[in-house]
Amino acid sequence: MITIGIDIGGSSIKAALTDAGRRILARTLRPTMAYSEMEQTFVQIHACIEELLAHEEAKDVAGIGVGVPGAIDLEAGVVFYPPNLPSWGEVPVASMISRRWDLPVHVDNDANCAALGEAHFGAGRGRSHFIGLTLGTGVGAGIISDGRIYHGQRGFAGEFGHITIHDDGPLCNCGNHGCVEAYVGIRYLMQRAVPALIADEGSPLHRSATENPEGLTPKDIADAAARGDGTAQRILRDTGERLGVAIASAANLLDVTTFIVGGGIAAAGDPLFEGIRQSASSRVLKVHRDALHILPAELGNDAGMLGAASLML
Amino acid sequence: MITIGIDIGGSSIKAALTDAGRRILARTLRPTMAYSEMEQTFVQIHACIEELLAHEEAKDVAGIGVGVPGAIDLEAGVVFYPPNLPSWGEVPVASMISRRWDLPVHVDNDANCAALGEAHFGAGRGRSHFIGLTLGTGVGAGIISDGRIYHGQRGFAGEFGHITIHDDGPLCNCGNHGCVEAYVGIRYLMQRAVPALIADEGSPLHRSATENPEGLTPKDIADAAARGDGTAQRILRDTGERLGVAIASAANLLDVTTFIVGGGIAAAGDPLFEGIRQSASSRVLKVHRDALHILPAELGNDAGMLGAASLML
Repeated sequence: MITIGIDIGGSSIKAALTDAGRRILARTLRPTMAYSEMEQTFVQIHACIEELLAHEEAKDVAGIGVGVPGAIDLEAGVVFYPPNLPSWGEVPVASMISRRWDLPVHVDNDANCAALGEAHFGAGRGRSHFIGLTLGTGVGAGIISDGRIYHGQRGFAGEFGHITIHDDGPLCNCGNHGCVEAYVGIRYLMQRAVPALIADEGSPLHRSATENPEGLTPKDIADAAARGDGTAQRILRDTGERLGVAIASAANLLDVTTFIVGGGIAAAGDPLFEGIRQSASSRVLKVHRDALHILPAELGNDAGMLGAASLML
Repeated sequence: MITIGIDIGGSSIKAALTDAGRRILARTLRPTMAYSEMEQTFVQIHACIEELLAHEEAKDVAGIGVGVPGAIDLEAGVVFYPPNLPSWGEVPVASMISRRWDLPVHVDNDANCAALGEAHFGAGRGRSHFIGLTLGTGVGAGIISDGRIYHGQRGFAGEFGHITIHDDGPLCNCGNHGCVEAYVGIRYLMQRAVPALIADEGSPLHRSATENPEGLTPKDIADAAARGDGTAQRILRDTGERLGVAIASAANLLDVTTFIVGGGIAAAGDPLFEGIRQSASSRVLKVHRDALHILPAELGNDAGMLGAASLML
């Protein structure tokens, strides 16, 4: 089955013509233009589709899957006020695309699409129960249960970042205190990292943290950790340990023991994963301990697009 | 459909002949004899069944449902080392009962049965998504999703008591720190209550807390709170607030907004529920706030038995 998968992110739109997500036959990329009018974003979306439909293999295309960063009414294919697309209100994404191209359109949340992509084609192959986490500005998650996305009552399930790990902890963007996102979301992570790097005169990042803290990125920390910097390693390990607290809570509540971790700082590798595994394994109920698998995601930035392409499977 | 529902608790076995859980046609109660050999407990179970089958209405009985306090292999009907039945190892409950009575037998966890009972006949009627909580020594839970029990990969889902709310909090029975159970489980609740009551010379419970703290029960605190004692009310309200932290985490992760709270201290009423509602509502994501319902359970001690009786629906 030939399908198109589209991942609408805050900065770019990624789209591909695929064999139902299995193989990428052609791909394209356009700017989201998130701070323009919504119609401008749709001009870009339609341009992606037009480009992909021009390929020879697209003549039998069965449908289009779209991943969007927001809460979604799945049956209606309507997206509600996605925070990273500020000019969008309630947008009937499915009907706006299907009307134009006369094709079936399925829409789901971007984190759900990324988890579905990993389920079909990445680190989740052969696993019918897992939670796919995407670490970035927030902590997105898709819950895969019996091989399918678990949506909850209204389609809003998977707000993993807003599991409380410390009830009088730092204020989170959402208004609650001590959400796991208020420790491991990129902005909060950098807030904790900068003073630690300023305090460590031996760190290769000491100078940039002191002189230009705004310019420091999670990738700088990951790179410094990979080159052996102890402070950078400690920051990533601590981040992993915080994430492990919420992983243990979710494992105990849902009887899910596989967690697939992707997104920007997940590329930081060993110290982060060591922190997650040590913390989650020591905190989870004994019955889950041996079954616990914390795996790196395999599809990188393509996960959401490939998952969207497989929404109609 | 006529069924038998059996709830095997740590101290007593409750059983009833029912119209698939809807109406109780006859009921009986026997001691669990949890500290004798396992066979003694089965003598009591079989005696309950024999007594109920002797009723006229039992001639068309379609099956037996059993709720057991432990982890269960649902397909095999095998229970694994239930902590409150210390002489039980791996016990094939379903086959031991079906062989003797030549009837289909369904087995599930007691907290799942209690949630299912509330779903069909209690506070969960008409609600297809909720979490049923039973406050006691631990915090049991059954997750109802699309009208059915959510079991997770191996049937162990629902360990709500082991959601972490404060990652460097008090040591929990399970080995983790800061589980919600380590704040609201009866033993931990009493550990926090006694010093507060000793410190408050004006409390009607001051004397018993000082002279015989071991004799004090959650019911004493609930009664004192109902009579207006500020310290007792504060203890219950604080307990509710702690529970509300975990409720907000579960609501955010699963998109579930109805929580039905039963069990011993749930009878404490207003201050407990006020604490839960205030805390959960202020912590949950905005998208869930208006939909949040914290309801008292309606079936009391019969919930597990009635849910077991409806397992084959």
